[in-house]
Amino acid sequence: MDNNSSHKNWKNQLHDIIYEADTPIGKLFDVTLLILIVLSIIFVMLESVKGLSAETYTFLYYAEWIITIFFTFEYVARIISIKKPASYIFSFYGIIDFLSTIPLYLSFFITGTSALLAVRALRLLRVFRILKISRYIGESNRLAKAIKDSRAKILVFLFAVLVLCIIMGTVMYIIEGEESGFKSIPISVYWCIVTLTTVGYGDIAPVTPLGQFLAAIIMIMGYGIIAVPTGIVSAEYTHHQARKVHLNTQSCSHCSENEHNDNAKFCHKCGKDLHHDHE
Amino acid sequence: MDNNSSHKNWKNQLHDIIYEADTPIGKLFDVTLLILIVLSIIFVMLESVKGLSAETYTFLYYAEWIITIFFTFEYVARIISIKKPASYIFSFYGIIDFLSTIPLYLSFFITGTSALLAVRALRLLRVFRILKISRYIGESNRLAKAIKDSRAKILVFLFAVLVLCIIMGTVMYIIEGEESGFKSIPISVYWCIVTLTTVGYGDIAPVTPLGQFLAAIIMIMGYGIIAVPTGIVSAEYTHHQARKVHLNTQSCSHCSENEHNDNAKFCHKCGKDLHHDHE
Amino acid sequence: MDNNSSHKNWKNQLHDIIYEADTPIGKLFDVTLLILIVLSIIFVMLESVKGLSAETYTFLYYAEWIITIFFTFEYVARIISIKKPASYIFSFYGIIDFLSTIPLYLSFFITGTSALLAVRALRLLRVFRILKISRYIGESNRLAKAIKDSRAKILVFLFAVLVLCIIMGTVMYIIEGEESGFKSIPISVYWCIVTLTTVGYGDIAPVTPLGQFLAAIIMIMGYGIIAVPTGIVSAEYTHHQARKVHLNTQSCSHCSENEHNDNAKFCHKCGKDLHHDHE
Amino acid sequence: MDNNSSHKNWKNQLHDIIYEADTPIGKLFDVTLLILIVLSIIFVMLESVKGLSAETYTFLYYAEWIITIFFTFEYVARIISIKKPASYIFSFYGIIDFLSTIPLYLSFFITGTSALLAVRALRLLRVFRILKISRYIGESNRLAKAIKDSRAKILVFLFAVLVLCIIMGTVMYIIEGEESGFKSIPISVYWCIVTLTTVGYGDIAPVTPLGQFLAAIIMIMGYGIIAVPTGIVSAEYTHHQARKVHLNTQSCSHCSENEHNDNAKFCHKCGKDLHHDHE
Repeated sequence: MDNNSSHKNWKNQLHDIIYEADTPIGKLFDVTLLILIVLSIIFVMLESVKGLSAETYTFLYYAEWIITIFFTFEYVARIISIKKPASYIFSFYGIIDFLSTIPLYLSFFITGTSALLAVRALRLLRVFRILKISRYIGESNRLAKAIKDSRAKILVFLFAVLVLCIIMGTVMYIIEGEESGFKSIPISVYWCIVTLTTVGYGDIAPVTPLGQFLAAIIMIMGYGIIAVPTGIVSAEYTHHQARKVHLNTQSCSHCSENEHNDNAKFCHKCGKDLHHDHE
Repeated sequence: MDNNSSHKNWKNQLHDIIYEADTPIGKLFDVTLLILIVLSIIFVMLESVKGLSAETYTFLYYAEWIITIFFTFEYVARIISIKKPASYIFSFYGIIDFLSTIPLYLSFFITGTSALLAVRALRLLRVFRILKISRYIGESNRLAKAIKDSRAKILVFLFAVLVLCIIMGTVMYIIEGEESGFKSIPISVYWCIVTLTTVGYGDIAPVTPLGQFLAAIIMIMGYGIIAVPTGIVSAEYTHHQARKVHLNTQSCSHCSENEHNDNAKFCHKCGKDLHHDHE
Repeated sequence: MDNNSSHKNWKNQLHDIIYEADTPIGKLFDVTLLILIVLSIIFVMLESVKGLSAETYTFLYYAEWIITIFFTFEYVARIISIKKPASYIFSFYGIIDFLSTIPLYLSFFITGTSALLAVRALRLLRVFRILKISRYIGESNRLAKAIKDSRAKILVFLFAVLVLCIIMGTVMYIIEGEESGFKSIPISVYWCIVTLTTVGYGDIAPVTPLGQFLAAIIMIMGYGIIAVPTGIVSAEYTHHQARKVHLNTQSCSHCSENEHNDNAKFCHKCGKDLHHDHE
Repeated sequence: MDNNSSHKNWKNQLHDIIYEADTPIGKLFDVTLLILIVLSIIFVMLESVKGLSAETYTFLYYAEWIITIFFTFEYVARIISIKKPASYIFSFYGIIDFLSTIPLYLSFFITGTSALLAVRALRLLRVFRILKISRYIGESNRLAKAIKDSRAKILVFLFAVLVLCIIMGTVMYIIEGEESGFKSIPISVYWCIVTLTTVGYGDIAPVTPLGQFLAAIIMIMGYGIIAVPTGIVSAEYTHHQARKVHLNTQSCSHCSENEHNDNAKFCHKCGKDLHHDHE
């Protein structure tokens, strides 16, 4: 199948359409896929809504079939056009592509209400397909890197918050007791997280004066420590930008190194004078 | 109509009063308009309140008429005094001015309860008129520019948050089910946005242990990632200010070094006097 | 009364005790006053609590009398010991001191339940007395200055948020209607402020799909724009600290000016060479 | 007991296992302990949950005994292997270790339902044991130091917030009254803290128009001042990082200039080679 060059050329073109976004047809393919992914998510969401008309459900059923067929063709085309199919099939996006396509086909083999519910649950994994969109936006990578840089510090901080929540949740369980909604320590810890993160549902709320006093302290504390992760990320960002700004001023006329300190007189790379041109 | 200079002068004066805020009468006009806009918004808000006395409704009715007449005169004056009326009429503020004035007149032609309700809805568009106030405050432009600079990054971030909410909302729908208030996937996504943004109404709240555990993780995550947009804007602001500080107004007349302290009298590079020109 | 120096000396000593905190007795007076202010606030708060024992109310009654008598003596002493009593009496703290002392005396002249309630309301003004504590903490002034510096920008920002809330509140009133709790436009604007500031009581919450969709957009927006005031204050703070750090490095050996740029070679105040000592 | 060196050696080895984490067996001990602490916390939390099967309670009972016995051996081993046992026993972690071990033993001596409840309360102190984990993570110290640096400013700020809450809570008590849930001034202050920190339970919410108006102002204020602690920590962090960047490791051997870029090969001040010593 791979012995003539015209066939190879056809496979290369398919590869360009599916994997590259440089050619007009490749761009069109990507945009079509993006719209179909977004539509399929909206349809999955709509399907779970009760009280829609029978026509809507019929429409959703056919729309589901059209999208599934397109996804099937796309999945097959991806396998055919790539040189090492195995590397795609078992990659993260390969598995997600497979799981996005399979649910409707499975509904033929697995019958019964409870089984169909599980299939519907499987079908919901298709929403992960939207993650592909991150490929289309360049800036998201830079943002992801910035979060990654301050990830370690934020994780340590969040762990400290969790320890605080377990301790405070336990104390609140003793103070408030079960009649206030603090039924068990896990529930109390859950309440403490809800409070410290300033979400505050109000499904569980302290009713005793001592409990309300402690809750007020937890809130004031949460108000104070919310500053810490923000401060970390801000500093990380400012730091990155500061480095960019401070170093991109002058360029050495000898070795064209262009990252120097503001007060540098000699190039730190080749040792030549920066300010006076070499005659 | 434009053939004598006295008439032209009269139109120019009207233009100065309405469009400029330099002359005392122009300033008076702007302040009067500002007060009337604020009053009209308060009256629109009051009108929707139930249980007021008949006298209040009568007062609101007449106040509405007085403001509408003033707005009508202002709208006509704006069209007359400007050289190219079309450019005003179809501008953003032109359309808002028109929509602010029209509802009361429309109430004569459209009768019936449901139609009047639609008119009342149209009338509410008048609140957009308050956007004009942004003209009066200079600093808002600088603030708007700062938000604009970091807009792209914040949008990418908010999109990532939305993807997270769709995935988490779907998972919560499967875990919690319909009896906990998670009636459909859109409702679950709505709940997830309410939780992640730390709003936390409490109209929908997880009741199963697994749901509460996942909700706690979502909250802790929300607590951690709320830092990201703040960090972006902080860095952007710090960056701008740092540049402003480093680029000072005075420049040395001898060596043209232009980065000096605010209280500098002599150039720190060549030692020459900064304030007095060298004869 | 002012003719002998020993008397004047006694008044000066009283002035030192009350107005200064340098001497041990002056410090003791300030600490005693601080404790009494805090106690009086706690007592006022306790008095409003229902269901306490008769003994507690009796204790609070006598404690109230003791504190009032101390405040009376303090108020009289402040008037006697100062040179210009009028400047104290009509100052901000003078009026607060007077209002803190008067309620209990007024309760003799004004009788009846509704009148006594008004007196109790007056008595609550005593909590303003705690503002005096700000005198005792030095660092609060620095903090207050930092907030003052970015006040203008934050006010412009908060005004923009208010405009957004009025527009969004009106739109939500039309969408949700009165049966969802959005009874009038002011209530809807109140709901919008509750949502945008991420407080989220849940007493009013959207129930229609369109309302929930719009509410989700408002929350995501609130999540994004919460970054702006934080960014402003962060930048302001960083800016202050950066200036402090960047300028306090070298000191001129000639005029001892010690605020120079990092790369300064000549003093910007006297024009002398910074690096080489003058022989 | 301390007279032969082999015995001493055995005690030293025990000390190394328990107190050091360098050797493989010491690392194994630490990880085992960490897992047991986490398990014991999970078991304490589970024990408070109602409606578990009898088997689970039996399992928790035996798991409790195994962990208590391990903790007992660990506690005894810590006392034996250390040179000055008293310094350990009365240290912070020594007391926590003792309190983590004792509850189950106490349950033999103290009987009756109310007494056992107190024992259960004591047992909950074991969660404090998780604080030990902070020893294992190095970065937490750096984070703790950063919080410590800006602690004074944040405390002053939080105190100002508290004063604001007391004043606003009192005003809301007068406006809203007891039928709206603002039963007493402490409850009103609690509500004000819940609102200003943007937690917003909704168990108490203003119902009168004036109360809602004031609540909206409090929220807008809270939205504005949440920026202050964040700004402080951000500035502190940025400040620290800026210093770290500016103070680099390498120093010029010729002119002792010590602020170089990370990739600098030549001194930017005198142009000499940075890496090779000058013969």
